[in-house]
Amino acid sequence: MPTYRAPVKDTQFVLQAVVGLDRYANLPGFADATSDTVTAILEEGAKFCENVLAPLNLPGDQEGCARHADGSVTTPAGFKAAYDQFVAAGWGTLTASPDYGGQGLPHVVGTAIAEYLSSANMAFSMYPGLNEGAQAAISAVGSDAQKRTYLPKMVEGRWTGTMNLTEPQCGTDLGLIRTRAEPQADGTHRITGTKIFISAGEHDLSDNIIHLVLAKTTGAPDSVKGISLFIVPKFLVHDDGSLGARNGVVCGSIEHKMGIHANATCVMNYDGATGYLIGEEHKGLRAMFIMMNAARLGVGVQGLAQGEVAYQNAAIYARDRVQGKALGIVANDNAIPQAASKADPIIVHADVRRMLMDGRAFNEGARALILWGALQVDLAHKAATPDERQAADDLIGLLTPVIKGYCTDKGYEVATAAQQVYGGHGYITEWGMEQFVRDARIAQIYEGTNGIQAMDLVGRKLGLNGGRALRAYLALLAEMIADAKGDARLATLAGGLEKAVGELQAATMWLMTNAMAKPDNAGSAATAYLHLMGIVALGHMWLVMAQASHAALDTGPGDRDFYEHKLITARYFAERFLPDAGALRRKLEAGAEAVMALPAAAF
Amino acid sequence: MPTYRAPVKDTQFVLQAVVGLDRYANLPGFADATSDTVTAILEEGAKFCENVLAPLNLPGDQEGCARHADGSVTTPAGFKAAYDQFVAAGWGTLTASPDYGGQGLPHVVGTAIAEYLSSANMAFSMYPGLNEGAQAAISAVGSDAQKRTYLPKMVEGRWTGTMNLTEPQCGTDLGLIRTRAEPQADGTHRITGTKIFISAGEHDLSDNIIHLVLAKTTGAPDSVKGISLFIVPKFLVHDDGSLGARNGVVCGSIEHKMGIHANATCVMNYDGATGYLIGEEHKGLRAMFIMMNAARLGVGVQGLAQGEVAYQNAAIYARDRVQGKALGIVANDNAIPQAASKADPIIVHADVRRMLMDGRAFNEGARALILWGALQVDLAHKAATPDERQAADDLIGLLTPVIKGYCTDKGYEVATAAQQVYGGHGYITEWGMEQFVRDARIAQIYEGTNGIQAMDLVGRKLGLNGGRALRAYLALLAEMIADAKGDARLATLAGGLEKAVGELQAATMWLMTNAMAKPDNAGSAATAYLHLMGIVALGHMWLVMAQASHAALDTGPGDRDFYEHKLITARYFAERFLPDAGALRRKLEAGAEAVMALPAAAF
Repeated sequence: MPTYRAPVKDTQFVLQAVVGLDRYANLPGFADATSDTVTAILEEGAKFCENVLAPLNLPGDQEGCARHADGSVTTPAGFKAAYDQFVAAGWGTLTASPDYGGQGLPHVVGTAIAEYLSSANMAFSMYPGLNEGAQAAISAVGSDAQKRTYLPKMVEGRWTGTMNLTEPQCGTDLGLIRTRAEPQADGTHRITGTKIFISAGEHDLSDNIIHLVLAKTTGAPDSVKGISLFIVPKFLVHDDGSLGARNGVVCGSIEHKMGIHANATCVMNYDGATGYLIGEEHKGLRAMFIMMNAARLGVGVQGLAQGEVAYQNAAIYARDRVQGKALGIVANDNAIPQAASKADPIIVHADVRRMLMDGRAFNEGARALILWGALQVDLAHKAATPDERQAADDLIGLLTPVIKGYCTDKGYEVATAAQQVYGGHGYITEWGMEQFVRDARIAQIYEGTNGIQAMDLVGRKLGLNGGRALRAYLALLAEMIADAKGDARLATLAGGLEKAVGELQAATMWLMTNAMAKPDNAGSAATAYLHLMGIVALGHMWLVMAQASHAALDTGPGDRDFYEHKLITARYFAERFLPDAGALRRKLEAGAEAVMALPAAAF
Repeated sequence: MPTYRAPVKDTQFVLQAVVGLDRYANLPGFADATSDTVTAILEEGAKFCENVLAPLNLPGDQEGCARHADGSVTTPAGFKAAYDQFVAAGWGTLTASPDYGGQGLPHVVGTAIAEYLSSANMAFSMYPGLNEGAQAAISAVGSDAQKRTYLPKMVEGRWTGTMNLTEPQCGTDLGLIRTRAEPQADGTHRITGTKIFISAGEHDLSDNIIHLVLAKTTGAPDSVKGISLFIVPKFLVHDDGSLGARNGVVCGSIEHKMGIHANATCVMNYDGATGYLIGEEHKGLRAMFIMMNAARLGVGVQGLAQGEVAYQNAAIYARDRVQGKALGIVANDNAIPQAASKADPIIVHADVRRMLMDGRAFNEGARALILWGALQVDLAHKAATPDERQAADDLIGLLTPVIKGYCTDKGYEVATAAQQVYGGHGYITEWGMEQFVRDARIAQIYEGTNGIQAMDLVGRKLGLNGGRALRAYLALLAEMIADAKGDARLATLAGGLEKAVGELQAATMWLMTNAMAKPDNAGSAATAYLHLMGIVALGHMWLVMAQASHAALDTGPGDRDFYEHKLITARYFAERFLPDAGALRRKLEAGAEAVMALPAAAF
C-alpha cells in the first residue's frame, strides 16, 4: 500500500522564496497569513491528508461508488466519516469570504492545501473541489439573496456544489447544448435535459447538492449566445434555509471509468426541475468561465499532486528494493553500495535516478509555478492599485492554460515513470502505483482537454489586449535573467533559460507571421507552444529557487543540505528539461501543411 | 465498443517495399511465402482477428480470469472457443519447423500476424505468444527426445508453454533466484520454489502447460553462473505422449493488475515438482535469453499493436464526432467542413489531426521497422553465407532493445493520445480506449523494463565485437541517405535523417569518451540514447518507404492515393519526430553528475 507525506518543508520554501508571502502583509487576508499561522495550517493539513485521506485512497479505488435504484449514490467506506472530519476542521472554509463563514485566507494558502488533498486522495478531494468552483460562480454572479441562501452552507461544506456543462452531443462546443429552461410565472425556470460526466453529481457526503446548470431559455439563440446559468438544488431550500421538497433532478447512472473510481461521475437527468437564473440571461457562459478558470488551476494542481505522490512512493521503493550491483561508485553516500551485498538498492542505478530526478525537477518546479500562479489570483483581486491587479490578472490569464495543460501532461508522465521504477510490481494493483497513473490521466482531459488549453493559449490569450500579457511576462523573464546572470553561480541556468525564452519568442513571432492568414498553423502549433511555455515557466521558477538557495547558503547555516539539493535539482532541470524547447519550436514551425494534407477518409 | 481492421494493405506494402520478401525466394521457407500465399494468410488472419478476437477484447477485460480453490484458472467467456479456432486453423504453426508439424514460413510472416493478434486482443495473443517463446527455447537447447516429446503438441497448440524467471525478491537480477532443483536418482530434478508474474501460467485453453523454469541445482554457485533451466510440465507425459499424473506445481493466486485482465498472471508454487534439465547445467541463463530475445521483439510488436488499434478507433471517432467549426479551410476534402452545419467533425481541427498523424507516423514506421527486424531474424538463420547470417544477427541484436523499448514507449504514448481524441469519452470504460492504454502499459515493463533495454543497448550491444554492429548499421544508413539525396524529392527527408544520424554518432562518441571511466554516464544516457536510435531507425524506414512510394508513383497508375499519403506521412515524420534527436543528444551529453549527486536519503 502506498504512503504519502505532505511536502510541508518544500511548500514553506516556495511560499517564502518564490511567493514572498510576507511582502503582501498589507493586503486583505494576507495579514492573517503569518508564517506561524501558515505553518500550523500546513502541518494540520498534512496530518489530515496523511492519516485520514491517504489510507482511504486505494480501498476507495477498489470499492468505487455505488448507485442504488432510487438514484442515490454511496461513496466508498470511510469517505463519509472523513468528509465529516473535513467539515468539522473547516478545511473548506480556508479561502472563502468571511461574509459567508470563510477564513478569508489568501488563495495561495488554499492551493498549497489543495495539493496535499489531491495527492492523498484525488477522488475524495474532488467533492470539496467542485464545491469550491460552484461557490466561485455564485460569489461572482449570484444575487445577494442567492449568496445568502447558498454560500454559508456550501462554505461550511454541509452542502456541496457541481458544474453541469457537458451533454452527450456537447463537450467542448457548448453552443450545442440542448438542455432547456422554461420560464415560470413565479420567476423560476423549469429545467429539462440530460447532463453527463458530472463529477460529484450525486453522493452521500452532504445534506444538499447545489447544481450549477447551463441551459438555453425558451426562445434564446441556439448558440453559445443563448446559454444561461441556473442554480438547481437537489433539495429545494425554504426561505429559512431549511430543506424542502426533492427537486426534479436525479442521477440516472454512474460511469465506469479508468480511474477516480471513488468520485461519482454521474449522468444527471433534469425533468422539469426548478432552477433559478443566476447572473444575466444569455450570459451563462461568462459565469461558467469564472468557475472554469479557477477549476483549471485546480486541475493543474492535480497533475502536480499525482506526480508528487507517485514520485514519493517510487523513491521509497528505489531505496528499499535490492536488485543488481551499482555500476559506478556513489560518492558521499555511506548507505550504498554495500560492497558485501549481492545486490544494491536500485536507487544506485543511474537510469532509476533519472526517473526520480525527472519527477523531482517537475514536482518542485510545478509546485513553485502553481503557488506563484495562485499568488497572481490573489493579487488580481487584492493588490493595492488597479495596475497591479491588472498585471496579476494578465499573468494568470496567460498562464492558466499552461498550468492546466503542461502540469497535467507532465504529471501523468511523472506518475508513469514512477510506476516504471517498480518494474512488474508497478503494474499490480495492490502496490497502488497504477492507480496514480489512472487517476492522473483524467486531469489531461477534463475542464477543457489539454488541446483546448493549447488553443486557448495560442488563439486567445496570446493576442488579448494586443499581446500585453505575454509582453509583460517576457519582460519579467528578461529582468530575472539579467539579474541572475550577474551571479556567476547562476550563469549556466540563466543562460539556458535565456535560450529557451529565445525559442519561445521565435515561436511567438512565427505564430504572428503565419497564423493570421492560416489559422490551422495556430492549431497545429498549439500543443507544442504550450509545452514550450511550460518549460520556460518552470525554468523561471527554478532560477528563482536557485537564486534563493544561494542566498540562503550565503547568509546562514540553516539547512544547508536542503538548499544544496535544490541547486542540484535546478541543474538537472537545466540539463534535462530545457533542451526540449528548441525541438518544440522546430516542430511547430513546420506548420500545418503535413498535418492537414490527408483527406479525412484516409485516416 | 471499439473495432479493429487489420492493416493488410500496409503490411503488404512493407513486405514488398521494405522487406523485399520476393528477393529471398531462394532461402528455406521463403519459397513457400509467395505473394499469393502471404496475401491469403494475411487476409485469413485479418478475418479471424477482426471477427473472433476483437469482439472478445473489451468483455474479456471486464470479466478477467478467475482462479478456483483447486488452483485451476478459467479464462473469460469465449476465450476457449476462440482458442480452439486458433488451433484448428493452425495459427500457431505458421513459422514452426516442419519437423514438428509447423509450416516453416518466414518469421517475418508470423510477425505480421502477431501484430494483428495483439491489436485485436492483446491478452488472448499472449497465450500463444508465450507458447512460441517456450518452443524457441526447447528448439534451441532441448535434446532430441525433449523436442519430440513436447514440440509437436506445443506447435499444434494443444499444449502451451510459459517462462518462469521472476521471484518475489528477484526480477531483473536473476542471480538472486532461490528456486532449487534437487537431482534425483532417475535423472530428474525436484523443483521447489515460488515464481511470480507468470503470464499464462495456468488457464483452461490447453491440455497441458509446459513450464520452463529457472532454478539453481544443489551445490550450484549462488549467482547467475549457477542457474539451470528445467522443463516442468503441468501434467507429466508418458513415453507414448499421453498425459500422466498432475505434477507438483500449482497456481497459488492470480494478480489483480492494471490491464491485460484476460491473461492470467500467476504466482506458481513449485513443491517438489518433477523437472527435466534442458540444455547444460548452469547454462540456464543462456537458454533463457534465446527465449527472451524473441520475446522482446514480440513485446515491441505489442507496442505497435496497441498504438495501431487505438489510432484506428480515434480516427473513426474523429470523423464521426461533431464539435466546433473548422478554423481553416480543409482543401480537397468534399466531406468537410459542412458550411451549413453548426459544428464539424473534429478531424477538421489541427490539434486533433496532430494526434492522429503522430499515431500514423509512428505506427507505419514501427511496422516497417519490426518487419524489417523480423527479416533479419530470418536471415540470421537462413541467409546463404555465414557473413550474411552474421550481419543480420548483428543488426537484430543491436535493434532488439530499440524495437522493444522505443516501440513500447511510443505505442503507449500513441494509445494515450488516441484516448485523448475522445475527450471525456476516452476515460469511460465502454468506449474501450482506456483499455488500450492500460494494456499497452505492461509492454514497457515486462521482458526487461525499458530501462534494462536501454542498458542492454548502451552497455552491451554497442561495444560487442568492437562495435561491429553499430558500424555496419551506420554504414547502411549512410549508403541509404547518399542514395536518396540523389533524388531531389527525397532531399529534405534524407537531409533530416542525416542530421539525426549525426546526433546519434555524436552521442555514441560521447559515450565512448565518457562512459568507460564512469559507468554512470552510460546509465544516465541510456534511455535517451535508445530513443535517439529509435528515431533514427524509424527515419530510416520512412526514407525507404518514401523512396518506394515515389518509385511506385513514377512507374504505374496503381493506388496513387496510397503512395501520396505515404509521402505526406513521411514528411510529417521528418517535421515532427526528427527534431527530438538533437534534444536527446544534448540531454545525454549532460552526463551523470546531476543525476547521481543527491544522497539516497534525500529522495
